[in-house]
Amino acid sequence: VSVLIKEVQYVAVQAWQMGKSDPRKIIFSAKMGLALALISLLIFLKEPMKDLSQYAVWAILTVVVVFEFSIGATLSKGFNRGLGTLSAGGLALAMAELSELAGKWDEVVVVISIFIIGFFSTYAKLYPTMKPYEYGFRVFILTYCFIIVSGYKTGDFIHTAVTRFLLIALGAGVSLVINVCIYPIWAGEDLHNLVAKNFTSVANSLEGCVKEYLNCVEYERVPSKILTYQASDDPVYSGYRSAVEASSQEEALLGFAIWEPPHGPYRSLGYPWKNYAKLSGALRHCAFMVMALHGCILSEIQAPPERRQVFYHELQRVGAAGASVLRELGNKVKKMEKLGPIDMLLEVHEAAELLQNKIDRKSYLLVNAESWEIGNRPHSPAEPQDSLNMDDEEHKVLGYKSLSEAVLDLRSVTIPNSWDGLQNNVGVSPTVPPPDATSKDFKKQISWPAAYSFTADASPPWEESKTYENASALSLATFTSLLIEFVARLQNVVDSFLELSEKANFKEPDELPAATRERTGLWFRLFRFV
Amino acid sequence: VSVLIKEVQYVAVQAWQMGKSDPRKIIFSAKMGLALALISLLIFLKEPMKDLSQYAVWAILTVVVVFEFSIGATLSKGFNRGLGTLSAGGLALAMAELSELAGKWDEVVVVISIFIIGFFSTYAKLYPTMKPYEYGFRVFILTYCFIIVSGYKTGDFIHTAVTRFLLIALGAGVSLVINVCIYPIWAGEDLHNLVAKNFTSVANSLEGCVKEYLNCVEYERVPSKILTYQASDDPVYSGYRSAVEASSQEEALLGFAIWEPPHGPYRSLGYPWKNYAKLSGALRHCAFMVMALHGCILSEIQAPPERRQVFYHELQRVGAAGASVLRELGNKVKKMEKLGPIDMLLEVHEAAELLQNKIDRKSYLLVNAESWEIGNRPHSPAEPQDSLNMDDEEHKVLGYKSLSEAVLDLRSVTIPNSWDGLQNNVGVSPTVPPPDATSKDFKKQISWPAAYSFTADASPPWEESKTYENASALSLATFTSLLIEFVARLQNVVDSFLELSEKANFKEPDELPAATRERTGLWFRLFRFV
Repeated sequence: VSVLIKEVQYVAVQAWQMGKSDPRKIIFSAKMGLALALISLLIFLKEPMKDLSQYAVWAILTVVVVFEFSIGATLSKGFNRGLGTLSAGGLALAMAELSELAGKWDEVVVVISIFIIGFFSTYAKLYPTMKPYEYGFRVFILTYCFIIVSGYKTGDFIHTAVTRFLLIALGAGVSLVINVCIYPIWAGEDLHNLVAKNFTSVANSLEGCVKEYLNCVEYERVPSKILTYQASDDPVYSGYRSAVEASSQEEALLGFAIWEPPHGPYRSLGYPWKNYAKLSGALRHCAFMVMALHGCILSEIQAPPERRQVFYHELQRVGAAGASVLRELGNKVKKMEKLGPIDMLLEVHEAAELLQNKIDRKSYLLVNAESWEIGNRPHSPAEPQDSLNMDDEEHKVLGYKSLSEAVLDLRSVTIPNSWDGLQNNVGVSPTVPPPDATSKDFKKQISWPAAYSFTADASPPWEESKTYENASALSLATFTSLLIEFVARLQNVVDSFLELSEKANFKEPDELPAATRERTGLWFRLFRFV
Repeated sequence: VSVLIKEVQYVAVQAWQMGKSDPRKIIFSAKMGLALALISLLIFLKEPMKDLSQYAVWAILTVVVVFEFSIGATLSKGFNRGLGTLSAGGLALAMAELSELAGKWDEVVVVISIFIIGFFSTYAKLYPTMKPYEYGFRVFILTYCFIIVSGYKTGDFIHTAVTRFLLIALGAGVSLVINVCIYPIWAGEDLHNLVAKNFTSVANSLEGCVKEYLNCVEYERVPSKILTYQASDDPVYSGYRSAVEASSQEEALLGFAIWEPPHGPYRSLGYPWKNYAKLSGALRHCAFMVMALHGCILSEIQAPPERRQVFYHELQRVGAAGASVLRELGNKVKKMEKLGPIDMLLEVHEAAELLQNKIDRKSYLLVNAESWEIGNRPHSPAEPQDSLNMDDEEHKVLGYKSLSEAVLDLRSVTIPNSWDGLQNNVGVSPTVPPPDATSKDFKKQISWPAAYSFTADASPPWEESKTYENASALSLATFTSLLIEFVARLQNVVDSFLELSEKANFKEPDELPAATRERTGLWFRLFRFV
């Protein structure tokens, strides 16, 4: 018994929390109850409406089936139901005439006609573009069978058809009136909010990604949920995943939103709901870049932390600027404001340019010069001693040339032996190198490049695994160029936003108070005329 | 009229083609027609079954609603319907007793009870984990209302409830028998095929991607459908997109497949359908890398073709090996075979290692040394003449050192001025450089590195846009490291496959004839015993 009480308690708490987080659900449930109660009053009808009362169940059925969460869904289902009922009714009446002609074979005709109707409407339902009307086809079959069957029993097809249609219309009418007039829930509004929310989650993901990368966060073991693209509560991952996954939800909401009449802030006829989905698609195109950025963190091949530090400020600035652009766009979508006169991409482009500049100047950090195949030595491309000597000489020569100019010192950046072969399990990434003396050396060299120190003997022994050190350094290159590609894709998002804000006639960000004043002015004048 | 004829012709052709491409749809439609025709025979029942015949429409309703394409969907809907009907029936009977106690207030009690039931079951339906049972809740409300209403009219609640339940059971029974016994369509099989197909499409996409990259295919204008992640007929794009988008379809099929009894090749009880979805998720994780690779082709920042040529064979080999691994896995999924004793990743890992090796040796092609910030010159980091001189001297010194070793000639690789600022529209990518003398020079240098030619004066003028040339070279680095990351992720796919093949008890690839022999042996022995 105590288990039962606990269970009930748990359910009650869950229900309470759901209601608190989205009160619309409570209201919707109450509306549903109200519609059903209203329709059930039909059964108390006395003569001469007895007939209607007898078939009251059809009105109840209609309410149960048609009453959907959003107005758009209710309208589209109601339309499907109406169309299915009407066309099936017409067909059934025609078939009834036909079966009467058949005389004593009428039973056979009826059964065969049901088979044929069932076959063709099921087949049509399976056609891909017919999918939104799936429900209509079901209603069509059902109505046809029902009218044929009841008509056959009572012998009065027309009466059956008319009664049924009246009751369905009544049920649909009650559903519509209650759903639209009492606290309407609009699919369009949901779509609008969903798109705005996607911006925030991608922005959070981007910021988290850059932050994790710069702080050299490592996954001890990548959650297998990420590896199989299932929902996981990793914040960075769930951010972009929710934006990517929202695709099907958006499609469904879009399908309903286009059914909804102009309402609230979506005043214009033929409101460009499609553009919301398009904008979200453009955002998704960006989110895929964030996903690829996150892939750099998940990867086994990791850039050495010291090298990431070199680009710390630039990377962070691009990340922050990119996220703020997304947040601002999300805000503008939410508030339905046009872009201001200031180019919102200015800051992020500048940041990206600075990052690119720095990469330009420091791209030696992205590769390992040690193993360069200098010229025509195809027979011993990786002969260690030779190559070392060569490097030494190169450095010395350069150093000789000008000691005041610090040197192209590729050797001093020692890379931890992190990537021990591709054969490793992807899940394990033991990549964090100990913050040893070498990294300090490196930082010194960065801050005082004039203090020329040649640390060739500090380099690790020439091993086979060295082949992969380069991959580690290139990983940083990958991260930065993915980030820059992300910035490039932002333009596309802004373009989609501009198209949406034009078509949907968003308000001007500054002229908002002016517009309000003008309208009150108009009202004032109108009243004066009256 | 001729328009109408054309329309009819068009529809007929479409219908014919749909039937040809998936004959199961025709069969399913015929099954639906058959079930309806069978149920409609109810109306011809004479006494003493008159009662059943009168409410025949409930059986028809059940057939229309329960009859779904796959067995799993039919079973799960049938179960929902049965459970909803039974529990609502019980509740309605109890409420009927209660309303009789209420005496003259019974009408009020009935209406209020309908409101309460409508409210609570709608509210429960909205709870996220209840979504698969959405249909059950609808049936629950409907049945409750129906029994209360009809019971109120006839005064015989139990009779109504029993009749209704019998008819629904009859309808569900006919649906099930026809659906299962005549050419059953299994959701599990669809899931199985879908997963296998995803492998092929990702493999095709990967191959196409590498091929396009090496052939320097450029999008004159990236289709806006790709930029907003909508369906498009670009073959590379649609390949990985279909695998990524299959996610929701897989989820639906998985939901139905777990309802299906063991059948055909899926003999074991509790068949690991979830592992199919998991394997597909792991594949999706790979597909995201293919998506990122494709992003390199879509990007405005393009690596110069000459440099891509350097890695031509290595890139192609990795692409081909990766695609063949995917195809083989897809085949094994399709044929339900375990992996052989040979490590299938051997070839692709070797290819990736070779690619990595080559990058190691040639990573100077991935960066532009020109703009390196050589040492401590913070006041004039981009002073052109100075830097040029420096480079000259570097080259000369090296050349002096050993003329037989061709030189670290970074200058001779001229990069086209392709990326003129981030502010450009992403859609336009005028990146193909003319195949001019410089590129020939470069190729010569690669083939005969000993022929040392110093082409410093061929270098483009030092411009501001130069800042982005590096990005262009880095794009190649990005492509290769994404490709290598793709290879790393393959391990995860193979692991998921191993898990699936263990749990689902796939057959051994070689021992197949042996196993068959053993079983026949067993049968033989059994027969001998009998």
